[in-house]
Amino acid sequence: MFKYVKHLNYPINIKTKNLKMAKYLLTQFGGANGELAAAMRYFSQKFTMPDDKGRALLNDIATEELGHCEMICTMVKQLTENASPKELEEAGLGSYYTDHNKGIYPIDASGVPFTATYFAVTADPLADLMEDMAAEQKARAVYENLIDLTDDEDILGPLLFLRQREIIHFNRFKELYEYYVKKGY
Amino acid sequence: MFKYVKHLNYPINIKTKNLKMAKYLLTQFGGANGELAAAMRYFSQKFTMPDDKGRALLNDIATEELGHCEMICTMVKQLTENASPKELEEAGLGSYYTDHNKGIYPIDASGVPFTATYFAVTADPLADLMEDMAAEQKARAVYENLIDLTDDEDILGPLLFLRQREIIHFNRFKELYEYYVKKGY
Amino acid sequence: MFKYVKHLNYPINIKTKNLKMAKYLLTQFGGANGELAAAMRYFSQKFTMPDDKGRALLNDIATEELGHCEMICTMVKQLTENASPKELEEAGLGSYYTDHNKGIYPIDASGVPFTATYFAVTADPLADLMEDMAAEQKARAVYENLIDLTDDEDILGPLLFLRQREIIHFNRFKELYEYYVKKGY
Amino acid sequence: MFKYVKHLNYPINIKTKNLKMAKYLLTQFGGANGELAAAMRYFSQKFTMPDDKGRALLNDIATEELGHCEMICTMVKQLTENASPKELEEAGLGSYYTDHNKGIYPIDASGVPFTATYFAVTADPLADLMEDMAAEQKARAVYENLIDLTDDEDILGPLLFLRQREIIHFNRFKELYEYYVKKGY
Amino acid sequence: MFKYVKHLNYPINIKTKNLKMAKYLLTQFGGANGELAAAMRYFSQKFTMPDDKGRALLNDIATEELGHCEMICTMVKQLTENASPKELEEAGLGSYYTDHNKGIYPIDASGVPFTATYFAVTADPLADLMEDMAAEQKARAVYENLIDLTDDEDILGPLLFLRQREIIHFNRFKELYEYYVKKGY
Amino acid sequence: MFKYVKHLNYPINIKTKNLKMAKYLLTQFGGANGELAAAMRYFSQKFTMPDDKGRALLNDIATEELGHCEMICTMVKQLTENASPKELEEAGLGSYYTDHNKGIYPIDASGVPFTATYFAVTADPLADLMEDMAAEQKARAVYENLIDLTDDEDILGPLLFLRQREIIHFNRFKELYEYYVKKGY
Repeated sequence: MFKYVKHLNYPINIKTKNLKMAKYLLTQFGGANGELAAAMRYFSQKFTMPDDKGRALLNDIATEELGHCEMICTMVKQLTENASPKELEEAGLGSYYTDHNKGIYPIDASGVPFTATYFAVTADPLADLMEDMAAEQKARAVYENLIDLTDDEDILGPLLFLRQREIIHFNRFKELYEYYVKKGY
Repeated sequence: MFKYVKHLNYPINIKTKNLKMAKYLLTQFGGANGELAAAMRYFSQKFTMPDDKGRALLNDIATEELGHCEMICTMVKQLTENASPKELEEAGLGSYYTDHNKGIYPIDASGVPFTATYFAVTADPLADLMEDMAAEQKARAVYENLIDLTDDEDILGPLLFLRQREIIHFNRFKELYEYYVKKGY
Repeated sequence: MFKYVKHLNYPINIKTKNLKMAKYLLTQFGGANGELAAAMRYFSQKFTMPDDKGRALLNDIATEELGHCEMICTMVKQLTENASPKELEEAGLGSYYTDHNKGIYPIDASGVPFTATYFAVTADPLADLMEDMAAEQKARAVYENLIDLTDDEDILGPLLFLRQREIIHFNRFKELYEYYVKKGY
Repeated sequence: MFKYVKHLNYPINIKTKNLKMAKYLLTQFGGANGELAAAMRYFSQKFTMPDDKGRALLNDIATEELGHCEMICTMVKQLTENASPKELEEAGLGSYYTDHNKGIYPIDASGVPFTATYFAVTADPLADLMEDMAAEQKARAVYENLIDLTDDEDILGPLLFLRQREIIHFNRFKELYEYYVKKGY
Repeated sequence: MFKYVKHLNYPINIKTKNLKMAKYLLTQFGGANGELAAAMRYFSQKFTMPDDKGRALLNDIATEELGHCEMICTMVKQLTENASPKELEEAGLGSYYTDHNKGIYPIDASGVPFTATYFAVTADPLADLMEDMAAEQKARAVYENLIDLTDDEDILGPLLFLRQREIIHFNRFKELYEYYVKKGY
Repeated sequence: MFKYVKHLNYPINIKTKNLKMAKYLLTQFGGANGELAAAMRYFSQKFTMPDDKGRALLNDIATEELGHCEMICTMVKQLTENASPKELEEAGLGSYYTDHNKGIYPIDASGVPFTATYFAVTADPLADLMEDMAAEQKARAVYENLIDLTDDEDILGPLLFLRQREIIHFNRFKELYEYYVKKGY
């Protein structure tokens, strides 16, 4: 089971409204390479990892990615605070406002809802871990795109932190992958 | 952020292999009325609940539902333990085996992958809470269908527990709904 | 079977072109909380309502919602009358024009096609009616968002009418729900 | 707007339970080539047909197809009347029962939910009418597959009627197509 | 099997950056009426065409449409060459950039990913060929919409070529359809 | 552009009807880890590989995977040759027969239609190549599942060939990945 801990993995304190950025960021919650896809991928895969070492690693990172979902959603929330319908519309979020007002809904940057087809579970430890390594690389690439789209330090801080976590996760999945290769899976 | 706690909300200890039941149960992980849909619905909606009371309730139940995902996946895992490809095929899980071997993947009972279109976020507290009340009723109905399909006490115990939780959640959402109605939302 | 009656539930007579508004309105045809989802939800559910009273209510409202689809599509049609490709593109409808020209296609405000996953049928009368009550609340919330986005009286009239109908439907579903609770379902 | 007329386009009176056939038939409600796809295709397209003749034809057939949805759902309902969960499971409908009990939900024969991507609206009268002619041919082909799968006269009667209607619709769309070709569209 | 031939069906040499046009064009790769849908439709259907003549025609056109995918992707690539993130964002491609940078991904003009539900395979030669004729008409209509949206000769040349090919394919499918009608399918 | 070459990458000559196996095999055409997903993934990604070496490799493998689609479809065709509707139904393909008769349609083993959400394009060469390496591993795993489900040498031969090709592709992607790492991407 899970327990909620009342603080974020990294502090979020965005002072400047930025509606377009909110729209782009949302993809790291509900998009193909986002945190929810990562969390559910590792959570699902852990049940068939071949040993405790594997199960523990996938479980740890799945749990952390759920916290990253919280970070992304908090950023989107702060970026849209006090925005009027008119402002949202002028920033190109009229469609989003119509369907969700200022609610947080897991979609990609174009508005396509989250689907589990973004990830795979094969129960083959090498295939699943390679999928996980790819996921981390893809998430890193999206964070780099997002970093290209803003100069706001309050946004850049958390994005750089999240990008860094993806690299660390990649390395941990890689180690486990190589360990399993050695063990002859 | 979230913390993983190394025990289940309710103990799972299934001693008899039951492949068909595993297939049906999976829908309470990845189906339209399942635990993942519930968890992500409440997690997403909490960001726009109008006060701490609302945010806390949605957060608590979202977190609990993540634990219910864990329970369902654990049941599926135990129900398929030691099953051979031939047994899986004979029980009608040949398609599942082909695509996922014995991995756990969030789909409904017919094999349709999880999608966020199963739930809505409107940021209107009354609409969102009514959606949540409906979600709990629908999950209850599916648990009752599952209960109809088995006599195994080891399966019935957790299912009855989970069904009961849905009723409790329904009542808590209803209380909050009525509180917000009174407050004039 | 159904019969088409050659007038609308409420007159539509929009005199001013408004392309963005057309784009937003389309979601009440093909979006998650739109009229088509409502019509198909009640139409599908009616077959397993437990008595004539329930079947009749769901059938009546399903039939009315089909008429509301007609209203929404008529509004979209009038709002885009005589618009040139250039005007459509400048208003942000270049994508829509490319794929559908000025045709009416059931999508949400971001362009995601209608899917039956927007609604559920459980055959449990309480769960289905609670889902219906939630649907009416969600549709009301979307109409309120749309009302926020325009000052045109010709658009506001039909939207206020449609919003009002959702409230009436909500109450009728609530009465039936309470009646079934009393009857012990 | 629409009016419901309290009889079916063709009488349905199935006396023998046939659960597998119910499962197959459901695709003509919610599948790619089914009646709902047809109804929504013509309903959506009619708004951009170039003249009253075109709008009227598409509207008439759309309205009739809604009645065909009613026929299909009525058949599914009668075919599953009084079936126990155990019987449903043994007939291969355990997955359906889990998710929908005996409710009627618009899916294809494999359980994939209805989506508007099954049809297109281009607003080009020739392209849209050719799409409609194809739709009628595809629906005819599916009815022929269904006819292959049963010997029950009570099922065959309505299926033969529905198949015949597709041929008639095909011819009417073809006439309109040729009329528009002559008019130089 | 297939062999790649290192030139395009028609030369592409676009000298002027046009980001919006790139976004619209992408639908002819991954949209409902695009070249990939056409290629996969004919490729899939060919296996059940009743004779060599039918199989050969579908195979030829499927193979050609794969080349048209190459043309569309090449156009998108040239239209976005050297565009900065800022330019992409200002042209309304910020969402696309976030998720795909300048990669080519098969979506429609609104960002909805390609799905096989855009086409049907019934194994009935008349139904399948009518579907193919409709596909060619719909693709033609979309090319006409795209042609409306640009004055750039470098874009118009390939678009006029592709539109022309759709008409030729339509006629070839029509001939085969009529041949099969005569043969009594 | 592409050219069709009138022989298969590996000979297919299946003499024994096997309907269930046909159903399972289809996933390697239209499933998440199948040949079409692979072909379209590499085809799409090649446009943003950073040099000729990368573009050529992705193009070569994409082209080969299209041929593998042909192999899979040919196997499905041969496995179902001369099967009657009754035989198909008894083997659990009644749903497939209803919707597609004996046509070949790109779905997974449970009947879910192909979607481009199965693959990603980020335009980051390392992320894209890691995704490709994962794809090859996942395809290998599915081929191993399929190999578990049959003893027929006529099926095993092509499956072993295809599995082997996935391993070779994996290695070639890995080499390119490491080359790009060294070049500092």
